[in-house]
Amino acid sequence: MTEQKSSNEMWGGRFASGPDAIMEEINASIGFDRKLYAQDIRGSLAHAAMLAKTGIIAADDHDKIVDGLNTILSEIESGKFAFSRKLEDIHMNIEARLAELIGPAAGRLHTARSRNDQVAVDFRLWVKDELSKTASALKKLIEAFLERAEEHAATVMPGFTHLQTAQPVTFGHHCMAYVEMFGRDLSRVRDAIQRLDESPLGAAALAGTGFPIDRHMTAKALGFREPTRNSIDSVSDRDYALEFLSLAAICATHLSRLAEEIVIWSTPQFNFIRLSDAFSTGSSIMPQKKNPDAAELVRAKTGRITGSLVGLLTVMKGLPLAYSKDMQEDKEAIFDAAETLELALAAMTGMVRDLTVNTASMKKAAGSGYSTATDLADWLVRELGLPFREAHHATGRAVALAEAKKCDLAKLSLEDMQSIHPGISEAVFGFLTVDKSVRSRQSYGGTAPQEVRRQIRFWKKRLIRQ
Amino acid sequence: MTEQKSSNEMWGGRFASGPDAIMEEINASIGFDRKLYAQDIRGSLAHAAMLAKTGIIAADDHDKIVDGLNTILSEIESGKFAFSRKLEDIHMNIEARLAELIGPAAGRLHTARSRNDQVAVDFRLWVKDELSKTASALKKLIEAFLERAEEHAATVMPGFTHLQTAQPVTFGHHCMAYVEMFGRDLSRVRDAIQRLDESPLGAAALAGTGFPIDRHMTAKALGFREPTRNSIDSVSDRDYALEFLSLAAICATHLSRLAEEIVIWSTPQFNFIRLSDAFSTGSSIMPQKKNPDAAELVRAKTGRITGSLVGLLTVMKGLPLAYSKDMQEDKEAIFDAAETLELALAAMTGMVRDLTVNTASMKKAAGSGYSTATDLADWLVRELGLPFREAHHATGRAVALAEAKKCDLAKLSLEDMQSIHPGISEAVFGFLTVDKSVRSRQSYGGTAPQEVRRQIRFWKKRLIRQ
Amino acid sequence: MTEQKSSNEMWGGRFASGPDAIMEEINASIGFDRKLYAQDIRGSLAHAAMLAKTGIIAADDHDKIVDGLNTILSEIESGKFAFSRKLEDIHMNIEARLAELIGPAAGRLHTARSRNDQVAVDFRLWVKDELSKTASALKKLIEAFLERAEEHAATVMPGFTHLQTAQPVTFGHHCMAYVEMFGRDLSRVRDAIQRLDESPLGAAALAGTGFPIDRHMTAKALGFREPTRNSIDSVSDRDYALEFLSLAAICATHLSRLAEEIVIWSTPQFNFIRLSDAFSTGSSIMPQKKNPDAAELVRAKTGRITGSLVGLLTVMKGLPLAYSKDMQEDKEAIFDAAETLELALAAMTGMVRDLTVNTASMKKAAGSGYSTATDLADWLVRELGLPFREAHHATGRAVALAEAKKCDLAKLSLEDMQSIHPGISEAVFGFLTVDKSVRSRQSYGGTAPQEVRRQIRFWKKRLIRQ
Amino acid sequence: MTEQKSSNEMWGGRFASGPDAIMEEINASIGFDRKLYAQDIRGSLAHAAMLAKTGIIAADDHDKIVDGLNTILSEIESGKFAFSRKLEDIHMNIEARLAELIGPAAGRLHTARSRNDQVAVDFRLWVKDELSKTASALKKLIEAFLERAEEHAATVMPGFTHLQTAQPVTFGHHCMAYVEMFGRDLSRVRDAIQRLDESPLGAAALAGTGFPIDRHMTAKALGFREPTRNSIDSVSDRDYALEFLSLAAICATHLSRLAEEIVIWSTPQFNFIRLSDAFSTGSSIMPQKKNPDAAELVRAKTGRITGSLVGLLTVMKGLPLAYSKDMQEDKEAIFDAAETLELALAAMTGMVRDLTVNTASMKKAAGSGYSTATDLADWLVRELGLPFREAHHATGRAVALAEAKKCDLAKLSLEDMQSIHPGISEAVFGFLTVDKSVRSRQSYGGTAPQEVRRQIRFWKKRLIRQ
Repeated sequence: MTEQKSSNEMWGGRFASGPDAIMEEINASIGFDRKLYAQDIRGSLAHAAMLAKTGIIAADDHDKIVDGLNTILSEIESGKFAFSRKLEDIHMNIEARLAELIGPAAGRLHTARSRNDQVAVDFRLWVKDELSKTASALKKLIEAFLERAEEHAATVMPGFTHLQTAQPVTFGHHCMAYVEMFGRDLSRVRDAIQRLDESPLGAAALAGTGFPIDRHMTAKALGFREPTRNSIDSVSDRDYALEFLSLAAICATHLSRLAEEIVIWSTPQFNFIRLSDAFSTGSSIMPQKKNPDAAELVRAKTGRITGSLVGLLTVMKGLPLAYSKDMQEDKEAIFDAAETLELALAAMTGMVRDLTVNTASMKKAAGSGYSTATDLADWLVRELGLPFREAHHATGRAVALAEAKKCDLAKLSLEDMQSIHPGISEAVFGFLTVDKSVRSRQSYGGTAPQEVRRQIRFWKKRLIRQ
Repeated sequence: MTEQKSSNEMWGGRFASGPDAIMEEINASIGFDRKLYAQDIRGSLAHAAMLAKTGIIAADDHDKIVDGLNTILSEIESGKFAFSRKLEDIHMNIEARLAELIGPAAGRLHTARSRNDQVAVDFRLWVKDELSKTASALKKLIEAFLERAEEHAATVMPGFTHLQTAQPVTFGHHCMAYVEMFGRDLSRVRDAIQRLDESPLGAAALAGTGFPIDRHMTAKALGFREPTRNSIDSVSDRDYALEFLSLAAICATHLSRLAEEIVIWSTPQFNFIRLSDAFSTGSSIMPQKKNPDAAELVRAKTGRITGSLVGLLTVMKGLPLAYSKDMQEDKEAIFDAAETLELALAAMTGMVRDLTVNTASMKKAAGSGYSTATDLADWLVRELGLPFREAHHATGRAVALAEAKKCDLAKLSLEDMQSIHPGISEAVFGFLTVDKSVRSRQSYGGTAPQEVRRQIRFWKKRLIRQ
Repeated sequence: MTEQKSSNEMWGGRFASGPDAIMEEINASIGFDRKLYAQDIRGSLAHAAMLAKTGIIAADDHDKIVDGLNTILSEIESGKFAFSRKLEDIHMNIEARLAELIGPAAGRLHTARSRNDQVAVDFRLWVKDELSKTASALKKLIEAFLERAEEHAATVMPGFTHLQTAQPVTFGHHCMAYVEMFGRDLSRVRDAIQRLDESPLGAAALAGTGFPIDRHMTAKALGFREPTRNSIDSVSDRDYALEFLSLAAICATHLSRLAEEIVIWSTPQFNFIRLSDAFSTGSSIMPQKKNPDAAELVRAKTGRITGSLVGLLTVMKGLPLAYSKDMQEDKEAIFDAAETLELALAAMTGMVRDLTVNTASMKKAAGSGYSTATDLADWLVRELGLPFREAHHATGRAVALAEAKKCDLAKLSLEDMQSIHPGISEAVFGFLTVDKSVRSRQSYGGTAPQEVRRQIRFWKKRLIRQ
Repeated sequence: MTEQKSSNEMWGGRFASGPDAIMEEINASIGFDRKLYAQDIRGSLAHAAMLAKTGIIAADDHDKIVDGLNTILSEIESGKFAFSRKLEDIHMNIEARLAELIGPAAGRLHTARSRNDQVAVDFRLWVKDELSKTASALKKLIEAFLERAEEHAATVMPGFTHLQTAQPVTFGHHCMAYVEMFGRDLSRVRDAIQRLDESPLGAAALAGTGFPIDRHMTAKALGFREPTRNSIDSVSDRDYALEFLSLAAICATHLSRLAEEIVIWSTPQFNFIRLSDAFSTGSSIMPQKKNPDAAELVRAKTGRITGSLVGLLTVMKGLPLAYSKDMQEDKEAIFDAAETLELALAAMTGMVRDLTVNTASMKKAAGSGYSTATDLADWLVRELGLPFREAHHATGRAVALAEAKKCDLAKLSLEDMQSIHPGISEAVFGFLTVDKSVRSRQSYGGTAPQEVRRQIRFWKKRLIRQ
């Protein structure tokens, strides 16, 4: 391939002077869109087959094109392909090489096609593939949580609101909250795949074409459900990229919440969990440190992905139809966000699988901070028939009394309890332990171990179905 | 209702001093969450009915609660309800009023419930209602476009790429590109409704409850498909809000593209369309001006909605489970974004319905700028068997010649044409008019009027089905 | 004022039909720009005085205008002014009322002026005022920190990296880190004021005017340093709003970091501080809870402000010069962000002033987690001449040994120490206590109490100067 | 350098197992922070010189360190340095190589230093350098505009509001609006440099150090004004990065406005300017196209930079002090934004320098659309003493009349004019041409050519001073 042959020459003879160096720098996309080489070749093969089938090109030319493209594919995969920035993008790089390899037949491949629909089909294929990878990564993370949830369905820990101890829950139940979150992410991924599953190939520059092409044939060959219905929209649309970034940003937010908990729970003050050495690092100056770097990095990646989403929303804002060059900015944002999300999901799956749960610390913390106060209030409602608000006030007084005596609720004397409400009996103390509290919460979706196990079973089945 | 009774008194007797004025200012949400009054009362009625059915409260108390809540509903709807900021939020405002109206029975309503699941159910109901409204507004806009598309299925205009004339298309075809975009928005709305269609009521503070509640009953009563499966997630989750904002941001981006076109097309230079007076304004100093203000405002609203999305993503980043007060920031963002989107969709529907299409200007512009150059290239391929790339080069030379002669392609002499390629015959001139060009693009999704009409029929059927 | 008189009538007689209801809804800004009434009247008074001085209007008309505007000012401030949405914005509302009050003279006020420069001057005045308020609020917060820093210059706490104990520091030193952050915010505010301190009044619609106006006179009257230098830029520019939002977003980020620390430090696990009741709230179901709501809300406000910044950046992206109606979206974002920042700064100042420091917990935590390991490594370098990296390795082994023995570094025997390095003497134990560690770090900016006090003195002087 | 030697070995012997492959992937920053090699070596040289001067290390060790670092510098610059991902970052890569080159003396360089202050000083140096480059690039763009402004100080074009013709202005005046915008960007750059001009070196891990270091000496050696005042803040602060991104986002917004104008003005409909071939591209299917790709790409880059700003704001939100690993996400965002901004400024400077102004089209457009209506209104005020509002109404009627007669205002007969207002005389027609209109607007900052030239002189002087 001749480096000197610029893409300018490709556009035709109209340009007097070649593009400026700065122009080449800002304009060339080959530095990043080479990632699309496989999709580009798949698209061209499907297009060529259709052109041959419909008689637009000769069978002989088709054979040459197929051979040439396959040669190029192996050149790229073996690292022998010489990418040229002068040829701007992956499409022109491949087309120019094809011309070198097979001569004039190469020029027939671009019949009834434009770079506008070509890049649209390449990019959709890439995003679709990436969404499948995201789905797999999400399933692995969910599976890791299901395992830990099963193991710890009855492991008591404090449930927090405002990062203050609220009520005892189980660690398994907490894990299952993340299963729900990542499960929603998974369903968003599936919806996005459904929605983008249309082939823009054949939209040509923007208006369709007068050649008798068969867009259903290329759509099918490329694994799309159907062709897109409007050629202008086909080359103007980047919704699939925006939707990918949106769901990635929401998923990253979930990851950041988990990462925050890992960071806080790894402090000596909480000491709920211990990350494996594989996901921690040390300090260059403080030899005793064991830092939850992986969790911090996952937390930080949220910013990167949200930033990419904002970036593309900004790019697309106010763009008139159909294709504008602004849209070339779509790729790097997605490539980076996809890679980042994959890495963050993998790192989190590793952390969840490997972390050691300090059940003793969790249990101790669960029992402090008057965490069973609600159980006392509920007992007053259930056993003494107090309206909840009244029970709530009485419990507040009991907590104040226990605070004054620097003890737990369960350590108040019956006399103390009766000073709060004369109807309280010895029986109440059976309800103020964390284990009892946890086991009692058997409402659907509640923290009782048997309920947690039920939801684990549900999710195992659902994952198989999906 | 006594203004002096602060929500502090509601929490129990533990607080020595009342909240500071600044605290009240930053903490109170009644200024905006009063919007949720109807949802809050619906939720309470469903909860009370379930408490009575399961025997957790007496039938008599249930009756009082129902009467009280209905009274409050009419007080609010008639503007007689005295909202109090001291009572912080809509839940406490209603609860306090209920206590005034029905006494101790009011205190029983909060059995097996917390503000955490209460606000979650209220907000989900609100978002679900809002998504339905968005769906309706989108359908109206799509219908407006379908009408204009039908009317202008054969109206020729320039198709643009890079805002340069590329190839002739029809205005109907251009309208149908927007139908595709807003159609995708509509399908995102439907997916979002499906995903949020679970009731968090009964999750209580975060752990579920020991009372024998029936969450399936309340879910059904509130029109949800089923109850949520994890009580911690139920009070921690704001995905439905994030998903609403994401789809709103993508939809706003579509609106901004259309708005941009309206602004550009309304310039005297383009003069493609004329907005009705109803959607234009004048200038205080330049009496001749007729400004596309409504389009500009719609374009600007994109920023507001994207900003709200970023806002909530930032709020949720790194929040440990379960409920944190940070999440109170969810509401204003959504309320504003929902209202903004509704208004923008309505304004755009009005503009699309009312605008006058200047078909003469469009047609004239469609024919300039060598817009049928591709038709010439395609003819060379089809009739003379040139490879596309060679045809493309030859066409480039023809354009250069026409430019030099300051004429259109169709005005070149046969001799000129043959200087480009000797095989060109008189027949070529039959293919260089815009009407011919447009009619020829009959590929699936292409701009040929019959193809545009086919897609209009498709969408009319689809809209009825939805 | 007649409600029926629409602003359409103001624009002149060109519009056949009045604006649609939706148009009025999306177009009218009076709902929010009424906040600018004082700035609008100040601007008009300055303009009128200049028009009179330069002889463009008669003294008599000037007197009427002044009287009329003052009447309107008191009508608005006493709540008697009837704002009309039909009159769109604050400028037209005031102008229409002025016409009612003083007749034709009112019509002379708009000579050599347009709504474009009028709104620009109003908004700049508002932002400038708001920046001054932000400066005051920042100074108060800095002062609160200086007080706490002085009080706790020698209070030992753990210094964290990765939220793991790293080295002991003092709470005063930690407070002073925030003084530096908010000090930078303050300097950004001052730079922003300098940059916006130019008056756009007199730019008229966009091109300046042929009337012999004196823009230096109005600039001076309104307290601006000078008039802007380019009339097109004067009506197109919203940099001052973007710059305000940028600095607000950075400041909010600082507030969020502090808020996060307050939330974490208030957990029973850390127990470093206790917020006053004034800045905490309780729970509706868990009577024992004392939640750091104010800190959580401040943390969440970051999202809101960042969202507003993104919103306005998105609005301004790609707007051609000069004024476009899109720019009307500037105000609500700034109004909300300014109010939010002021409230967050006030709330944080209150929290910092009121919080109780649990010095015992802090000190205990400071001594755990091998926090003086670096001191051991430094001792090995200083006393035994080991290269730092070697000392670091030896210290790592000492920590591992102490971990194995479940004790602190200071509790290892001399024999243990010598197994790490034979040169270690008894003297080393004098360097392994937290107090000794803290006192030793006397490098400029270091945590030693005397150094902290030096920086407090520096900042007290700097604040007075500013 | 041995690839096998992992940074784990650097941290000390505490880690049983090496970091997982995923961990290495997410944790290693050498892929991007190698960009900081020069800054890292500068920082180390300054630190070593200070350690020697204060007697903390021996002169002999200092000599070895200097030699070693210089060797490494040339190894890196000549491409011979083998970067290792196992060694995580640029600091460890250089340190490990230094140990290979000079043995134990290398271990003394890290005395009284930590990676926390090391990366802080490296990154500040980088940002400071980059801000200087941004300042230069801005000056070049301003100079390009000053040249075009001078050339076109009297070239008449339509001034737009709402993209509708408002009043005639000059192209030079329009250029000068951009000079003001980019001039403000330049002043923001200078403020940012002032604010970050403090050296964090010597803050060590976070608490300062007990070694008798001289931070003023290293600050001076590295070209900083002074050392930072608080060691905790020194390692926690990334304000300089956020401030860089903020000013870059505002500057990018300016570029996007200009880019939008270039795109619109290059359409055949406007035809105001023609980009040089160097900054345009062709189409693969439409040979006649000449697309303003460079302008579109510059417009799109706004999204990328705004995205990076949002990304880092999100990363920093809610991070407790001092250093957290999240902050490693700071670099790629800035590196990319800085490179992007530089490229966009260069591309825009090239476009502005090279573009051809179609003065005939501009002038023709300036005269259409009743652009001198304000001049008529002003004449009525000035000559007939009408209040502006009344003159405005009368002008509205004149425009309506001209519209009905399908002519310009200047082409109305005197009789027509007198039907609007009987006082109108023949003289009025002298004021209704675009040239007269432009020349009349001599107010400070107005569009009259002499006024434009005055502002050009002002800016030329200011640029020299800066």
